[in-house]
Amino acid sequence: MTNEQLFTITVLNSWKLVIGRFDESLAKLTDEQLQKQVAPGKNRLYYLLGHLNAVHDKLFPLLGLGERLHSELDEAFLSNPDKAHEDPLSAADLRKAWTEVNSKLTAAFERFTPAEWLQKHTAVSDDDFAKDPTRNRLAVVLSRTNHASFHSGQALLAK
Amino acid sequence: MTNEQLFTITVLNSWKLVIGRFDESLAKLTDEQLQKQVAPGKNRLYYLLGHLNAVHDKLFPLLGLGERLHSELDEAFLSNPDKAHEDPLSAADLRKAWTEVNSKLTAAFERFTPAEWLQKHTAVSDDDFAKDPTRNRLAVVLSRTNHASFHSGQALLAK
Repeated sequence: MTNEQLFTITVLNSWKLVIGRFDESLAKLTDEQLQKQVAPGKNRLYYLLGHLNAVHDKLFPLLGLGERLHSELDEAFLSNPDKAHEDPLSAADLRKAWTEVNSKLTAAFERFTPAEWLQKHTAVSDDDFAKDPTRNRLAVVLSRTNHASFHSGQALLAK
Repeated sequence: MTNEQLFTITVLNSWKLVIGRFDESLAKLTDEQLQKQVAPGKNRLYYLLGHLNAVHDKLFPLLGLGERLHSELDEAFLSNPDKAHEDPLSAADLRKAWTEVNSKLTAAFERFTPAEWLQKHTAVSDDDFAKDPTRNRLAVVLSRTNHASFHSGQALLAK
């Protein structure tokens, strides 16, 4: 295995680990428990799941992987705070969307060559990317992995 | 810049970003505010800071970077839950230790060549590493970056 390949596999493992742990915690919760707030007056678990779902779904266009699967989530989970908007999906459908989005993303990441990991994401211009080649797909995936860890820490408080 | 170098710089940026954001939040809190729990009955901010400090300090031997700086933190912040042990340091000294540990770690990471990022960490045997070369320094740093993100999410709830 080349060093480049080792880098990509190690990064991919980190993404899979964080998503896998979140999935494990999620599997232990009933749909009713998803309505619990992580702390008094804070977001519901349902909202965090929807928020992560919407953020991950936006990775498809951002990483040049094609169309979004669930843009119907944005209004409730990105544009508005928890409970300011009608819940757009049942807990069961939100779980399904979450699995669908992450499975498709992970499959795409597994197909990336090292050079493809280092390609620019679509929110940066060619000029800006030429000046700063760290604005690449890898940076975006690391950022989203940390973001998922950030909210996982909050979700775990509801236990 | 080679692909290998781009990988290491992007990973290092991710570590710096997470630590930098935590530092920014920390700078806005008084020592008294550090005594606040992140949610009723949950860890104090002081404890989370001590816990992250101890975990990061253990990276020195784990990554083959030399001796630890603050092993006096382990009893209170790793072996025991919050408030089960006397607080070992004042908030001011804990802040100092945090800056000291992370500055020294970041400086060491900046000196790693791509090949050095992929060297084994010290908690894996030569045999096991030969079977699974992803048990490398990079994997450890990604894991600790996610761990810091995880507790950052909790710390932010105390706002």
